[in-house]
Amino acid sequence: MIATLGEILLRLTPPDNGMIQQMGSYDANFGGSEANVAISLANYKIPTRFISALPDNELGKAAIFELSKYKVDTRHVNIKGNKMGIYFVEKGSSIRGSKVIYDREHSAFARMTLEDIDWDHVFDGINWFHWSGIAPAVSQNCADVTLQAVQRAAAADIPISADLNYRASLWTYGKPSSEVMPELLDHTTLMLGDPKSLEIMTGIKNPFSGDIKEQLDDLPAYYDTVFARFPKLKYIATSLRTIVNDTHHRWMGVIYDGQKLYCSTEYDLYPLVDRVGGGDAFMAGLIYGCVQYDDPQKTIDFATAASGIKHTISGDFNLVSVQDVNDLLARGGAGNISR
Amino acid sequence: MIATLGEILLRLTPPDNGMIQQMGSYDANFGGSEANVAISLANYKIPTRFISALPDNELGKAAIFELSKYKVDTRHVNIKGNKMGIYFVEKGSSIRGSKVIYDREHSAFARMTLEDIDWDHVFDGINWFHWSGIAPAVSQNCADVTLQAVQRAAAADIPISADLNYRASLWTYGKPSSEVMPELLDHTTLMLGDPKSLEIMTGIKNPFSGDIKEQLDDLPAYYDTVFARFPKLKYIATSLRTIVNDTHHRWMGVIYDGQKLYCSTEYDLYPLVDRVGGGDAFMAGLIYGCVQYDDPQKTIDFATAASGIKHTISGDFNLVSVQDVNDLLARGGAGNISR
Amino acid sequence: MIATLGEILLRLTPPDNGMIQQMGSYDANFGGSEANVAISLANYKIPTRFISALPDNELGKAAIFELSKYKVDTRHVNIKGNKMGIYFVEKGSSIRGSKVIYDREHSAFARMTLEDIDWDHVFDGINWFHWSGIAPAVSQNCADVTLQAVQRAAAADIPISADLNYRASLWTYGKPSSEVMPELLDHTTLMLGDPKSLEIMTGIKNPFSGDIKEQLDDLPAYYDTVFARFPKLKYIATSLRTIVNDTHHRWMGVIYDGQKLYCSTEYDLYPLVDRVGGGDAFMAGLIYGCVQYDDPQKTIDFATAASGIKHTISGDFNLVSVQDVNDLLARGGAGNISR
Amino acid sequence: MIATLGEILLRLTPPDNGMIQQMGSYDANFGGSEANVAISLANYKIPTRFISALPDNELGKAAIFELSKYKVDTRHVNIKGNKMGIYFVEKGSSIRGSKVIYDREHSAFARMTLEDIDWDHVFDGINWFHWSGIAPAVSQNCADVTLQAVQRAAAADIPISADLNYRASLWTYGKPSSEVMPELLDHTTLMLGDPKSLEIMTGIKNPFSGDIKEQLDDLPAYYDTVFARFPKLKYIATSLRTIVNDTHHRWMGVIYDGQKLYCSTEYDLYPLVDRVGGGDAFMAGLIYGCVQYDDPQKTIDFATAASGIKHTISGDFNLVSVQDVNDLLARGGAGNISR
Amino acid sequence: MIATLGEILLRLTPPDNGMIQQMGSYDANFGGSEANVAISLANYKIPTRFISALPDNELGKAAIFELSKYKVDTRHVNIKGNKMGIYFVEKGSSIRGSKVIYDREHSAFARMTLEDIDWDHVFDGINWFHWSGIAPAVSQNCADVTLQAVQRAAAADIPISADLNYRASLWTYGKPSSEVMPELLDHTTLMLGDPKSLEIMTGIKNPFSGDIKEQLDDLPAYYDTVFARFPKLKYIATSLRTIVNDTHHRWMGVIYDGQKLYCSTEYDLYPLVDRVGGGDAFMAGLIYGCVQYDDPQKTIDFATAASGIKHTISGDFNLVSVQDVNDLLARGGAGNISR
Amino acid sequence: MIATLGEILLRLTPPDNGMIQQMGSYDANFGGSEANVAISLANYKIPTRFISALPDNELGKAAIFELSKYKVDTRHVNIKGNKMGIYFVEKGSSIRGSKVIYDREHSAFARMTLEDIDWDHVFDGINWFHWSGIAPAVSQNCADVTLQAVQRAAAADIPISADLNYRASLWTYGKPSSEVMPELLDHTTLMLGDPKSLEIMTGIKNPFSGDIKEQLDDLPAYYDTVFARFPKLKYIATSLRTIVNDTHHRWMGVIYDGQKLYCSTEYDLYPLVDRVGGGDAFMAGLIYGCVQYDDPQKTIDFATAASGIKHTISGDFNLVSVQDVNDLLARGGAGNISR
Repeated sequence: MIATLGEILLRLTPPDNGMIQQMGSYDANFGGSEANVAISLANYKIPTRFISALPDNELGKAAIFELSKYKVDTRHVNIKGNKMGIYFVEKGSSIRGSKVIYDREHSAFARMTLEDIDWDHVFDGINWFHWSGIAPAVSQNCADVTLQAVQRAAAADIPISADLNYRASLWTYGKPSSEVMPELLDHTTLMLGDPKSLEIMTGIKNPFSGDIKEQLDDLPAYYDTVFARFPKLKYIATSLRTIVNDTHHRWMGVIYDGQKLYCSTEYDLYPLVDRVGGGDAFMAGLIYGCVQYDDPQKTIDFATAASGIKHTISGDFNLVSVQDVNDLLARGGAGNISR
Repeated sequence: MIATLGEILLRLTPPDNGMIQQMGSYDANFGGSEANVAISLANYKIPTRFISALPDNELGKAAIFELSKYKVDTRHVNIKGNKMGIYFVEKGSSIRGSKVIYDREHSAFARMTLEDIDWDHVFDGINWFHWSGIAPAVSQNCADVTLQAVQRAAAADIPISADLNYRASLWTYGKPSSEVMPELLDHTTLMLGDPKSLEIMTGIKNPFSGDIKEQLDDLPAYYDTVFARFPKLKYIATSLRTIVNDTHHRWMGVIYDGQKLYCSTEYDLYPLVDRVGGGDAFMAGLIYGCVQYDDPQKTIDFATAASGIKHTISGDFNLVSVQDVNDLLARGGAGNISR
Repeated sequence: MIATLGEILLRLTPPDNGMIQQMGSYDANFGGSEANVAISLANYKIPTRFISALPDNELGKAAIFELSKYKVDTRHVNIKGNKMGIYFVEKGSSIRGSKVIYDREHSAFARMTLEDIDWDHVFDGINWFHWSGIAPAVSQNCADVTLQAVQRAAAADIPISADLNYRASLWTYGKPSSEVMPELLDHTTLMLGDPKSLEIMTGIKNPFSGDIKEQLDDLPAYYDTVFARFPKLKYIATSLRTIVNDTHHRWMGVIYDGQKLYCSTEYDLYPLVDRVGGGDAFMAGLIYGCVQYDDPQKTIDFATAASGIKHTISGDFNLVSVQDVNDLLARGGAGNISR
Repeated sequence: MIATLGEILLRLTPPDNGMIQQMGSYDANFGGSEANVAISLANYKIPTRFISALPDNELGKAAIFELSKYKVDTRHVNIKGNKMGIYFVEKGSSIRGSKVIYDREHSAFARMTLEDIDWDHVFDGINWFHWSGIAPAVSQNCADVTLQAVQRAAAADIPISADLNYRASLWTYGKPSSEVMPELLDHTTLMLGDPKSLEIMTGIKNPFSGDIKEQLDDLPAYYDTVFARFPKLKYIATSLRTIVNDTHHRWMGVIYDGQKLYCSTEYDLYPLVDRVGGGDAFMAGLIYGCVQYDDPQKTIDFATAASGIKHTISGDFNLVSVQDVNDLLARGGAGNISR
Repeated sequence: MIATLGEILLRLTPPDNGMIQQMGSYDANFGGSEANVAISLANYKIPTRFISALPDNELGKAAIFELSKYKVDTRHVNIKGNKMGIYFVEKGSSIRGSKVIYDREHSAFARMTLEDIDWDHVFDGINWFHWSGIAPAVSQNCADVTLQAVQRAAAADIPISADLNYRASLWTYGKPSSEVMPELLDHTTLMLGDPKSLEIMTGIKNPFSGDIKEQLDDLPAYYDTVFARFPKLKYIATSLRTIVNDTHHRWMGVIYDGQKLYCSTEYDLYPLVDRVGGGDAFMAGLIYGCVQYDDPQKTIDFATAASGIKHTISGDFNLVSVQDVNDLLARGGAGNISR
Repeated sequence: MIATLGEILLRLTPPDNGMIQQMGSYDANFGGSEANVAISLANYKIPTRFISALPDNELGKAAIFELSKYKVDTRHVNIKGNKMGIYFVEKGSSIRGSKVIYDREHSAFARMTLEDIDWDHVFDGINWFHWSGIAPAVSQNCADVTLQAVQRAAAADIPISADLNYRASLWTYGKPSSEVMPELLDHTTLMLGDPKSLEIMTGIKNPFSGDIKEQLDDLPAYYDTVFARFPKLKYIATSLRTIVNDTHHRWMGVIYDGQKLYCSTEYDLYPLVDRVGGGDAFMAGLIYGCVQYDDPQKTIDFATAASGIKHTISGDFNLVSVQDVNDLLARGGAGNISR
């Protein structure tokens, strides 16, 4: 069973790529980086547990229902307080960009304390632990809880994956990410992160300028410096997104195992339906690959295809099965109708 | 021009009287007691100003658009911070009750300070000031701002109306309403409040038990004690709501001028579309009556009819014109088709 | 085959009984008194023809599709011009009344001339002709066309039904209804009209004041004066609507055959879904009864039940079958679930 | 843990009480008598298992998601075949009745065989078993499976509840219910059924004519004959529904324990939102009462209130908590707003 | 008048290219290969008749309404039984493919027998008969009916068109298409089919591998072998679809008259709205061309343009007029606004 | 404050790029060339006034609300009559073109007379006046009003901008545009118009054939002839639209100041959401540039970027801020997510 730690928020999106100021209604979903990873893995038939906190009201209840729908184990979700984390997504279109408004300060998750988690049992039956840089960015409390979780998992020899997930608009509670993240990342087996975020969060210099896709040959040497800094690391991966416009992206992924860089095919994603959660689907695909294949090429192929499809699904969650991903890999990118 | 002071919030309502846990979308409106009063008065062609604070993002911008739509003057709405007050309304149906979840702590309004208001000009051209008990219930800051406003208005000899608007789930910042409200109410010309709220907020004993509609003869004596406590008072009014079920209410209003109790007809409201904002529509009708008629019977008739119609309109706002209200008064309660 | 003459309009209704000023969208239907009668009869498996005019654009085309859907014969609908008649229906709720805005001046129908109809064939195979007071109210042209149709039908010994359908907001082209209608009504076999409209349109004094339901015993004597004025008349009928509020009506019907007044049961209609077209469904039921039963009691029972159900169906059209009406007559008013 | 056996179907409902012939879309839910009971109990925090069969396609997958959402254990749902049971619900309104179209023949459930169930484990951890008369009505296969389940449960001393749930339009595979049901009912502890269904299904004469509510004094003697026929019976209950019209019902319940008849209050349900699943919510309330209270009065009060609320919720499922039901019991029927 | 024989089904599509598992509602249409052809031809003002069977319930009634809307003659649609054929379409997007679930076994059409058709009149006034390979794939009964129809039409010297329409998921009743189809195809004047389907259904070897568009020069020789096998054949045509992704196709058509291959321009279809029914629109365009033009180049140009537009229209039906198609041919593929 | 003169109409659009004949509902907005310009400028924080006429009903009231929402001053909108101008927009998709149906004859605006405007105050505080060729195309009355306005503005030395806005389907009241427009254009400072419209409306020969983008070097010489004809002209601009298909346009703009041609970058717009109002957004951007920058390159860059974004927003109005436009200019065309 795989455990992830993070916040699940109510996501409100004006329908039909409309603008917030045009709104007469919002489509309502739930989402959050680590919840997205758990649900994507659950859709691959991997048992998962979500460690979090939710308010004691109808919104928290609905979030629990949503996680349960995908059979994610919610027994370690603490129910307390009254503030649901919320975020608004104004999806752009063509040359109009997307906008996100966070309303997650003081949420049940942000106020979670070390005492809210039953540390003696939270990792029972867990053989992989995942967190992302969003969890410790929310509040000092959350940073404390994340650190405790990472250290407990490491002590129990549970492999750990971390998605750097740098968001400039978070990290507002006083400490910069560069102060908090290095200690958290120390125990990481599988890391997801682009060079720019790595530099911000760990100080490892980003030697690249311009499009990394044109400099793939230089990646291994750079990644070796990351491996040197984080000795437990087995894999480091990153997605490479080219934004043609808000509704047309190109998408590929690479993974490095300390020796060789494995690259996926590049997908042409248009019309892009929903980019939010795309990185999380990539992360879930990487974990799935690590757990099931132990073959970096298969892993990066699976993770990139899976997250490519996610961009065609509205909402944060990647709803596809392993079969759906393999069908895409088999037909090489073009959609088709099966009837 | 009439000024009101308070918070306008984003209101999210599951469509078709659905439950929050069933949600796939929310109908989005704006609402808030004092904004509702301003907009209702604007629909009666009375110039109005709204004094408030909103966040500096797309949600705050949309709220400004909404107020401007009704020609409410927003130049004294302070734009600062990033948290929009939100509330969720789960509308009930028949024997299923309604539920409200507030998410307004730490909002731009809650954090507003005395410095955020341009006291030298905020009452320029104002000849009536209105506030409700929700404003000082939100935070100590808000209580300070409300007190300052009341005192400045009083100093400028501007008549003041106050709606007690007691909400048990607010008043959580440390001081009880009984400590904050009496000073605020001191300058009130027109007060809206039921005996129970009066007792909670001012300590004036509520001698009634059971249905007040059956004890209307006892109201004048009771109201005399209120008049004694608040010497500037010219009118005190209250609505009398009988809840048959969540979709069927009866609705009447009474007003007392220190000498006589004036009662409206009672309206049978079914199916009731949206009760939220009903009291604010009643308040706006009372103010309209005081300003236009100076005849307590006409005032209470207008206020009760106007607020009765509000219950048939979705959203917080009373969208009807003076003509619409007078049409209802003329035909005595039954709907009709004009073609 | 039954022919009706009149206008079919695009009907735009704010969804969910909303107000026009709240609109973000309109539900779109088609409707119009005489089209409604034709479609209701078609749903009783009576072949029908609709004589009218529609514009030569996508809106006119959509109207033809809608009539064809119910197998109404449209070969005598003239396609010319570019203006579709439109009307907006703001449905009320409870004590809030409904509002109708007509935008039908200068429509294809309003501009129809005597030359637009193929008089030699328009009544081929027709054994009943129906029109209502709306057709000649639209324009002088339409009054001319209606008169020609009535005279041709009478000359061919086709029985004629007429629904007075008085609308104060029409009749604006110069002549009052009292000048136009009497000649048109001369050939009527079956007339639908309340005493008030009869007085306005024909000058026959309306002796009633107050609720006619309480004075049913006086109806026969009054109707005898109408029979005296229109010697071809076999039946005169009227519906009796009590408006409790905009969503709650009571509904019954009476018919007089020159000798006896036949009354239906009274239906309690709440929640009322859509009153527009209710009178037309009553008219269609009367025609159906005359054609099928030749029994005034069965006719009035059928017509009232059928039109009662219409009030529960959104849109102008009565979509029920003879079986549906008979089921209601059998169970006596209460809804039920058949599974 | 409580197990129920039956079929869960895709339910398609024209939105806004529209008619099937008006359809442009269908609201999609899942429902089915025994699934409804399981989900209602799960919402009371009772662990539940659903024993059934679903097709191996996206529709079956979606049904599993829906059951999991409420934490109903689906490990004994057999996934095989390609036909999802479907039913269409045309909700009536006022005097227009509702219509149901079943499309469930040859479904995965209808084709389920004795081999499809893991009889050695299906009752592991189960301490109550529930089925209804719909399951054996679907096909001979289903009757065989139901009988096997009842006998296995009885052999394991698991209390059994049965809802007669007579549907005239089912029972079409060759055997009448009177041939199949008696043996199935033999082991019943708690039976839900009205006298008319009892006569059809078991041959026990129904001595009542007219409204049973007026003859409650005669019920005990009649129920004694049922107790005599089914010696394991501890309780027999029935709901008493008065249909004022399709949107206005009255609703009460009675339960008999062999000695005394316990009656609930009667609820006035208008506007009624969705009657489908109302009986199942009553059944779930009865089971909850038997398991939690062992007090017939509390049981019938809870069951009737709970199922009363169900009528105000769209879809088959009763989504309320024990707290919601107790709140209704406390306030005695009128809706209210909690804010 | 042109007759087509086949099944019309209820089509259920999750809105906005959503997935079935996300569904809260379905868009509801009707569709079916041969009904689509009839409706497309009707929109070209060609009188058409549809020969089929539908259940005797509200769904069958709604299907009749839909056909009548387009003035398709339904007098030879047999009304019997209770099962409507249904299919679910999950529309993909970009790299996510589409999925179709059929639920048409045991439908009214599948159970139709030779006796259900009035063979003496079904071809009255018919001068072209069309069927597709889906009709005989549904059941042995349907194969029998199709054969009878083909033979009767041939005996009456009515030209016959056939669309091979191979669907691997049908043909499950016991006989492979290769056993059933050859005899049916014997009388074909105009055949639509790609080489792969031809091989499966008739055994004529498919010599092509890879993209046929690159091998157009080899098509005539291949088609000569088909002409040799089916001596009545005058034209054979095929569409050539290149799937860039699920929302971006390229589309062209070719037709061979035994002497020369005529090719259309290729259309770039993005965003593609609805591919279902695209082939049927092509077929209807071919028939229209054969009947109106007798010029293979004009025929293939018309058919390809018409079916290209169909891909931009949601639902199965091609709703455009001859004028709309000719406008596209005139402007050569780019959309434009006419105002 | 900038004043614009023209008509605001109710715009009805089938949702989801559907066809009018498929309609079950219409999205409802308001729009009209000169209102669009005013609102776009208001969104750039430029005070604006709209001079127009609207009917005295709920539709006119809703239009006033919409203008007020954006703080456009409506005090010079005349309220009279009962006909709202309406237009229907059937949005195309891919190779299917868009269609517009106007229903604006006899509207309140079309019937406006010189007396309906308070000429003594209509230009109070105005420092720029804008009109387009649509206003004088509606009726002789409107041409008279436009001429009066242009002459009054010129007399008051207010700079005037004019958008030729040639619509072939208007100009039907008797005079061709070539007779009306030259006098109106005489006072123009900033003109928007392509060579083809210029030839039609002013007789200045259009020397270009084919794509003007390929002949940009020839534009200055041509524009010099326009400058010669209209001596007050300071700038002439045109947008250059390449229609790949109905959902994919390319978009650039050029402006000439009598000396040099300034060109913007070209934007690739796909998927294009709503082209209506794109030209008006370009016009508003030009005015903004003239007023704020007085730098033709900055002006054309701003106007083209702003109007490019408009194509991604549904409805007529350009809802973006100056900041949004500058963000696009900064990132050079690709959308992005800001979170």
